[in-house]
Amino acid sequence: MQNFEYNTPTKLIYGEGVITKLPEVLGGIGKRVLLTYGGGSIKKSGLYARVTELLKGFEVTELSGIEPNPKYSTSVLEGVRLCKEKNIQAVLAVGGGSVLDCSKAIAAGALYDGEPWDLIIGKVPTEAALPIVDIITMAATGSEYDPGCVISRTETNDKVGYMDQHLYPVASFVDPTYTFTLPNRQTAAGVADAMNHIFEQYFNADPNDFADGMMEAGLRSLMKNVKIVLEAPGNYDARAEIFLVSSLACNGILSLGEKGSGWPMHGIEHALSAYYDITHGIGLAIITPRWMAHILNEQTLGRFVRYGVNVMDIDPKLPRHTIAKQAIADTYAFFESIGIPMHLKDVGIDESRIIEMAKHIAENEGLDGRHVYAPLTEADILTILRNSL
Amino acid sequence: MQNFEYNTPTKLIYGEGVITKLPEVLGGIGKRVLLTYGGGSIKKSGLYARVTELLKGFEVTELSGIEPNPKYSTSVLEGVRLCKEKNIQAVLAVGGGSVLDCSKAIAAGALYDGEPWDLIIGKVPTEAALPIVDIITMAATGSEYDPGCVISRTETNDKVGYMDQHLYPVASFVDPTYTFTLPNRQTAAGVADAMNHIFEQYFNADPNDFADGMMEAGLRSLMKNVKIVLEAPGNYDARAEIFLVSSLACNGILSLGEKGSGWPMHGIEHALSAYYDITHGIGLAIITPRWMAHILNEQTLGRFVRYGVNVMDIDPKLPRHTIAKQAIADTYAFFESIGIPMHLKDVGIDESRIIEMAKHIAENEGLDGRHVYAPLTEADILTILRNSL
Repeated sequence: MQNFEYNTPTKLIYGEGVITKLPEVLGGIGKRVLLTYGGGSIKKSGLYARVTELLKGFEVTELSGIEPNPKYSTSVLEGVRLCKEKNIQAVLAVGGGSVLDCSKAIAAGALYDGEPWDLIIGKVPTEAALPIVDIITMAATGSEYDPGCVISRTETNDKVGYMDQHLYPVASFVDPTYTFTLPNRQTAAGVADAMNHIFEQYFNADPNDFADGMMEAGLRSLMKNVKIVLEAPGNYDARAEIFLVSSLACNGILSLGEKGSGWPMHGIEHALSAYYDITHGIGLAIITPRWMAHILNEQTLGRFVRYGVNVMDIDPKLPRHTIAKQAIADTYAFFESIGIPMHLKDVGIDESRIIEMAKHIAENEGLDGRHVYAPLTEADILTILRNSL
Repeated sequence: MQNFEYNTPTKLIYGEGVITKLPEVLGGIGKRVLLTYGGGSIKKSGLYARVTELLKGFEVTELSGIEPNPKYSTSVLEGVRLCKEKNIQAVLAVGGGSVLDCSKAIAAGALYDGEPWDLIIGKVPTEAALPIVDIITMAATGSEYDPGCVISRTETNDKVGYMDQHLYPVASFVDPTYTFTLPNRQTAAGVADAMNHIFEQYFNADPNDFADGMMEAGLRSLMKNVKIVLEAPGNYDARAEIFLVSSLACNGILSLGEKGSGWPMHGIEHALSAYYDITHGIGLAIITPRWMAHILNEQTLGRFVRYGVNVMDIDPKLPRHTIAKQAIADTYAFFESIGIPMHLKDVGIDESRIIEMAKHIAENEGLDGRHVYAPLTEADILTILRNSL
């Protein structure tokens, strides 16, 4: 087992109707609040009205229009400017993972005097951030229970993961009913995102039975419950369980003591959505079985066998290579069964820039290092991308 | 799924040699430290010498001799007195669950002007506690990652569970090598304790697949790894995995969204060890299969079937009642196989006071309430105790 330090200070406040506690939680932080949200779906759903009603008595400044794959040069910089101008005391993010991710970068940038991009790329250490509270409306990224965010800079095709202990939300409100009205495609993409967060930890060089078992439980739960909600979008228990797994999936608690994998599929996918602005979870679903097939060898076989038996219910008496290959085929078939387009060309990505993307990934993501479970050269990355077309 | 709030502020610092970070962690809190420990096993093991070496530069006051089932009238009150007299800034507990539990009660009592017992029984709310840091030397109670402690008052045969958000340790140092020299009986009792913490959550009225799967993974891991360490006490990975499950088992994270069970086996066992000062984990192991057999009925059957299939590897094609009964028999056989005496008479408890104990439990533990998974009357409790003789 690997040595580790683990500390999640975030308070999870979970369940239908919990939002009524918002004034109490924010009241303990400060009166001047930056309310951040996206393209207006929270206005249609009535959540915006409910939140502003609860925020009576607070001085609220709004930043709306935060994009999927949130952008540095527009949303982050504008948020930082507002925080400084209005002397904001807390950032309240209402929306999905993109809104929350953007808000984390804003919260850090607000307390920094230089160029916030330097914090995001780790050129300068993050010394502080404004307190972040969120009302998360989509089960996917797990940003509500992790210290990270992913920020895109379109000008340079960069999509950078930024992690720091100061970026844990103080409190995350999770009401599964907010996901009842999500289009099926978004529900499926969110589940694929959460599943991939588990895959990125599960495939590692120093597993232990406890962590493996927790992750297998998470994968089985996501696969079972997404089928339920695609048929019955208002099934509370299934929505709640998907959300619970998603919240824990990116936090590290499910893989305590295991070795890091270097998160290779995220390294690859970040380039896809930086170049083409596709939905993160869908990009990950497309990459996943191709990455699995590419790294399957004698060294990695044991992991795929365990995954096949414990998650995909494949007969353990079959030959080991058969189990592993079946597990990968079942992963592909599962994503397809929940309606995810499984080829890059289905999401508008053709061959034209894959050589450029493979080069960009190899140069920027460090996927050939020894910290990566199955190190990938530029040629490996190109093969995975080609096989994903 | 049940609504819940979850927040564990404790930092876990895990692995061989992590204790070198102690001065850094304590240094951020204060110079005047109360060092608490038990009967001197940390002196034999060399841990005491190592800790005092690391504490050079701190002003250390010592409280030694903390008993198993820590006592209010001696240890807690003496610790509180020392904290006030020496103006202590942090409590550093070095030892097992009893030392840490006692230190939590001391930390709260130190910042309270009245009788600390009133905090312990909840007569007065806990408003603050000194920061608690621990170096935990036994995998069992999970006190290193929970907000609770259990304190005994011998004069009144009381053994009271005291939980409060202020009692989470600031940081817990967990070095699995400290458990290499534990006698097998203590290792087994610790594992039984951790297993029981999971049982107390697993048997509940609103389960979900994810939480169930995490708990099943914990139980399987404990059962597998305790067999390894009883044969090979210095097996690092097995010791580390037992410790990891123990740390999470009492914290609530493994049963998020599930309904509380009222912890009936703990309610019963607390009287046993209050009256007879037996080892908590052994008392729990003795009670467990008798409690299971007593509450098995048509309503609870489903839980036992799932437990039997997913933890005890019983053939799911067998009749459901057969699976349930076999699961209970296997639980008994497992505890016996790791060397735990499975009758109360083996630990010095005869029939003479069981009527009195059943009455005490019924009057003090509230096990007949609707919050209890399978409510127990005084007659039920007496039957479980009789069947345990």
